[in-house]
Amino acid sequence: MSSQGIGEDCLGWAARDASGVLSPYKFSRRTLGNEDVHIKITHCGVCYADVVWTRNKLGDSKYPVVPGHEIAGIVTKVGSSVRRFNVGDHVGVGTYVNSCRDCEYCNDMQEVHCTKGSIFTFNGVDFDGTITKGGYSSHIVVHERYCFMIPKTYPLASAAPLLCAGITVYSPMVRHKMNQPGKSLGVIGLGGLGHMAVKFGKAFGLNVTVFSTSISKKEEALSLLGADFVVSSNQEEMTALAKSLDFIVDTASGDHPFDPYMSLLKTYGVFVIVGFPSEIKFMPANLILGSKTIVGSVTGGTKDIQEMIDFCAANGIYPNIEVIPIKYANEALERLIKRDVKYRFVIDIENSLK
Amino acid sequence: MSSQGIGEDCLGWAARDASGVLSPYKFSRRTLGNEDVHIKITHCGVCYADVVWTRNKLGDSKYPVVPGHEIAGIVTKVGSSVRRFNVGDHVGVGTYVNSCRDCEYCNDMQEVHCTKGSIFTFNGVDFDGTITKGGYSSHIVVHERYCFMIPKTYPLASAAPLLCAGITVYSPMVRHKMNQPGKSLGVIGLGGLGHMAVKFGKAFGLNVTVFSTSISKKEEALSLLGADFVVSSNQEEMTALAKSLDFIVDTASGDHPFDPYMSLLKTYGVFVIVGFPSEIKFMPANLILGSKTIVGSVTGGTKDIQEMIDFCAANGIYPNIEVIPIKYANEALERLIKRDVKYRFVIDIENSLK
Repeated sequence: MSSQGIGEDCLGWAARDASGVLSPYKFSRRTLGNEDVHIKITHCGVCYADVVWTRNKLGDSKYPVVPGHEIAGIVTKVGSSVRRFNVGDHVGVGTYVNSCRDCEYCNDMQEVHCTKGSIFTFNGVDFDGTITKGGYSSHIVVHERYCFMIPKTYPLASAAPLLCAGITVYSPMVRHKMNQPGKSLGVIGLGGLGHMAVKFGKAFGLNVTVFSTSISKKEEALSLLGADFVVSSNQEEMTALAKSLDFIVDTASGDHPFDPYMSLLKTYGVFVIVGFPSEIKFMPANLILGSKTIVGSVTGGTKDIQEMIDFCAANGIYPNIEVIPIKYANEALERLIKRDVKYRFVIDIENSLK
Repeated sequence: MSSQGIGEDCLGWAARDASGVLSPYKFSRRTLGNEDVHIKITHCGVCYADVVWTRNKLGDSKYPVVPGHEIAGIVTKVGSSVRRFNVGDHVGVGTYVNSCRDCEYCNDMQEVHCTKGSIFTFNGVDFDGTITKGGYSSHIVVHERYCFMIPKTYPLASAAPLLCAGITVYSPMVRHKMNQPGKSLGVIGLGGLGHMAVKFGKAFGLNVTVFSTSISKKEEALSLLGADFVVSSNQEEMTALAKSLDFIVDTASGDHPFDPYMSLLKTYGVFVIVGFPSEIKFMPANLILGSKTIVGSVTGGTKDIQEMIDFCAANGIYPNIEVIPIKYANEALERLIKRDVKYRFVIDIENSLK
């Protein structure tokens, strides 16, 4: 923890109160530890989590809040015991920067489920008591375990959204065996997470159908993403798809009914929920008849994250991004709230945060 | 289909209207086909489904309704092409007696999910148009595929409840890998299904905890079934179990909250629902944080049913039953509605239906 003053070497943008308005803020990062990597941040994706904590939506914001947990950058220093990274490497940091490293989940590389709690990349309280500060900043110091190698052929700007939006859909898709070519996938919501679910689905060889409340997304789904498209209010099209889908990935955070989608699943179908509506409610028959499965998921472990980045690089999967300067961050958050983005803002930290 | 008259060789007990009152009823079974087995019914379990259709709870009852889909008996005749059974064999028949035998699910021995619909053992419309009639009757004629061998060492009275209550919990428990010794299982509701879930859980080597709204079931859970016991309204005991269970099998059909139980699951925990409350509702965080799974399930395929019977015989697993004469059937259904049974009524058809 630091107060502003001489010697503070990190420039960030922070919200100071629940208005959520971001403005420049100077602070110190911790001294490089033996197992730490010092990263010059080049890009940071804009995630809805940034809205949640800059505006104190959960009542637990610890101001000043420097948001950002889709971080990409270049290694500038490494601690003496760091084994996996060298100066000059391109790296990413995702939604958490620490965990106990000793529990059953950490030992299984599922650190996001650490029994002592994984430490969020911003607005988290680290084990040393400091409040973590995120990627809307010039650099970050992170234990190497929570850093991921980004191949130099993969643009850093494109890599940023993989660290949250990408892994959040990739992890449950792989865990629930959605990488079976020829099977059918429905994706609810075409935002940052949804468009990545479509891209992974296509790469896995699935037949992908996008469901959206807005017909305006049809052209994009068809031409840009190569997916089929159904407006969820169209009863006829929904009925025609009854019992036709093997999997559904639901990325919608707004409240919406679940039964119309449950009835689209085949027997043993799997419905993954990664959004946060206010409640989940459905008729038992839609789950029990057909022995269906509903699962929740939250980002992924460090092994999964590296695997996902490598998969994207190997298969040429890139998020669709709108690169913005840091001074546009407040407007970007406003537009994100209005879902006016195709499909992820990425802040060009390197060239605009000075 | 038959009307009552001369030549009707099957004596059953049927409900004639939505009062659900059962009384003697004579009808004909179909002539034995090449692949059919003719079974003298010795016992029939009393399932809540018998209440549902004798009283027209779903509005689709086809009177007269002869209920009963937990059938045990002795083979008295076999068709010329029958391969698996001989006269004198002890056999069971469960919740369905036909399916298309040609779809992906039938081909996978998951006939309960037949795309043309599995034909229920009673109140179903068979492919030849006849209305199926269940096990509250002297005999039944069933295609051999839907008959199961009961070892002669296993009492027929005990076998009857396996055909619905047993398979309904066994099938999802095995499918979702609950047969891992040392893991922990919660069972919600201690009725016909719940007490079988406890017995399977113990046989699988799980640590089993029963959750009930009624303290009256504590002694039974502890002494008779060897399970731990928690009254679900006891906040202290519930809190002490937070994040402690690998699996939950929810057999409660009455409406109840799901969130208090969801919070008892560990990360990646699995919650199986086999009861039919009026709706399922919970907070997304209780599913998403911890990446938990909720699954529904409905009985099982023919391969699973035979496996379950063999497992019970090999491991000495017997339902706790109260054997009753057919003339007690109406009172038994009334008591079942009041949950006043430990834990399954079985009608002694052989000695009381004359």
